[in-house]
Amino acid sequence: TLTPSELLALAPHQTLGKAARRDAPRVSPGTDQEHMASLALHHCVTAMPVVDEDGRLVGVVGAATLMDILRREHVEDLHRLAGIARESVDADQARQALTAPPLRRARHRLPWLLVGLAGSMVATYIVSRFEATLEARPMLAFFVPGLVYLADAIGTQTEAVAVRGLSLSHQPLGRMLVAELRTGLLMGGVLGLLAFPMVWLVFGELALAAAVALALSGASMVATGLGLLLPWGLTRLGLDPAYGSGPLATIVQDLLSLLIYFGCVTAVVV
Amino acid sequence: TLTPSELLALAPHQTLGKAARRDAPRVSPGTDQEHMASLALHHCVTAMPVVDEDGRLVGVVGAATLMDILRREHVEDLHRLAGIARESVDADQARQALTAPPLRRARHRLPWLLVGLAGSMVATYIVSRFEATLEARPMLAFFVPGLVYLADAIGTQTEAVAVRGLSLSHQPLGRMLVAELRTGLLMGGVLGLLAFPMVWLVFGELALAAAVALALSGASMVATGLGLLLPWGLTRLGLDPAYGSGPLATIVQDLLSLLIYFGCVTAVVV
Repeated sequence: TLTPSELLALAPHQTLGKAARRDAPRVSPGTDQEHMASLALHHCVTAMPVVDEDGRLVGVVGAATLMDILRREHVEDLHRLAGIARESVDADQARQALTAPPLRRARHRLPWLLVGLAGSMVATYIVSRFEATLEARPMLAFFVPGLVYLADAIGTQTEAVAVRGLSLSHQPLGRMLVAELRTGLLMGGVLGLLAFPMVWLVFGELALAAAVALALSGASMVATGLGLLLPWGLTRLGLDPAYGSGPLATIVQDLLSLLIYFGCVTAVVV
Repeated sequence: TLTPSELLALAPHQTLGKAARRDAPRVSPGTDQEHMASLALHHCVTAMPVVDEDGRLVGVVGAATLMDILRREHVEDLHRLAGIARESVDADQARQALTAPPLRRARHRLPWLLVGLAGSMVATYIVSRFEATLEARPMLAFFVPGLVYLADAIGTQTEAVAVRGLSLSHQPLGRMLVAELRTGLLMGGVLGLLAFPMVWLVFGELALAAAVALALSGASMVATGLGLLLPWGLTRLGLDPAYGSGPLATIVQDLLSLLIYFGCVTAVVV
């Protein structure tokens, strides 16, 4: 792999065998295209030779193809994060997603929403199990949307980091998980410490404030764990980890947050 | 802009002035780098000439730089979607986001979470305004997490489409907005029609089922509108539209969903 300018700058009688770099990156025909693009970026090359198991050149992936792969992976990630079934892989299709007739758009977006509707029913069921608690203390419903939102926000951060980072990091899962859980506990602790005096001050109940702060820290920690384990599990199954950061991860996180919150308030307040 | 192979294939006496393509894409020094990368992809070129206002060549952006830009924009989008303050722009940094010490990770992720905490307090305040409603009918709390989740899911879909699509589409905002709102109403209508018999069947109240279905359709439509208007507004302000799909958009959507839901149930049920 010599660049055209290197090629033109060669001494007249030099053979290519001497001039060619032997440490250049190469991929096999079975290499994932995203991994190949990452490798090209890492080595600052704009073309990637493909070699078979004997090291024979099978072909070369050029700069235009590499650029196209990078853009496709970008749009794919966004759509999987958002739970849109059909990927718009090129610029024309990305524009189309904003210009197609509403009926066609709805068709690409409804499948994940129906999964979400099923999840919503489970969420409704979970809250309904705490009807007696809510009847005794309607105030407990006040904190549900905020707590669920914050745990989701933390989980989404971990997922966004994991979706790109997992394919690049070579740390064992256990170590990454412990570090993420500590990050989650740290952030949840800060949020809990901030929420505690405010809830106490506004609602005048120490036990309620403690339960909300406790639930916030717990849900934050669970969110980081789930945000790492879901993309990791999908990678292991040979699926795109970006699915693990979409609407499915959100509803699973929501259900866990509800269980953690009602668990905490039932234990502490009621 | 001739490719090296085109250059080598020229007839011996042909002048470059005749061979060079004059319709090749070009950018000015002030062009946004993401726009430039999109232009290169669209025209299938792997290098982009930069010309000043008189058409004089200022420089050329090569394939390696274009590839680097595409990857940076990808990671940036993911991080802005997730509300992570510092962008990890290259592969090493993307890996670092999974290997840095928890304290440093938390520092990059807390700023948006504190904005989220403020939003959560507003959510708590909104629900607390309906304390009397909840005291009379604790059952109304059951549907809050599911409804808020579904509206968010729909809003996130629109945002993911808008973040990429807005820079490529040349339709007037009004037309895009009407189409998105119709898409939202369509999807919300489907979800509402599915939820209506289930709520009626399980909870045995026609008015409650109607209120939930109505709130679901309304919140879905608002979610598509907000999901388009926020990225659009940010683009107009010269900011990255990806910010309009992050945690800020989610909490704004959550607050609107709560108001729509409690508005509907107060009007229909109580």
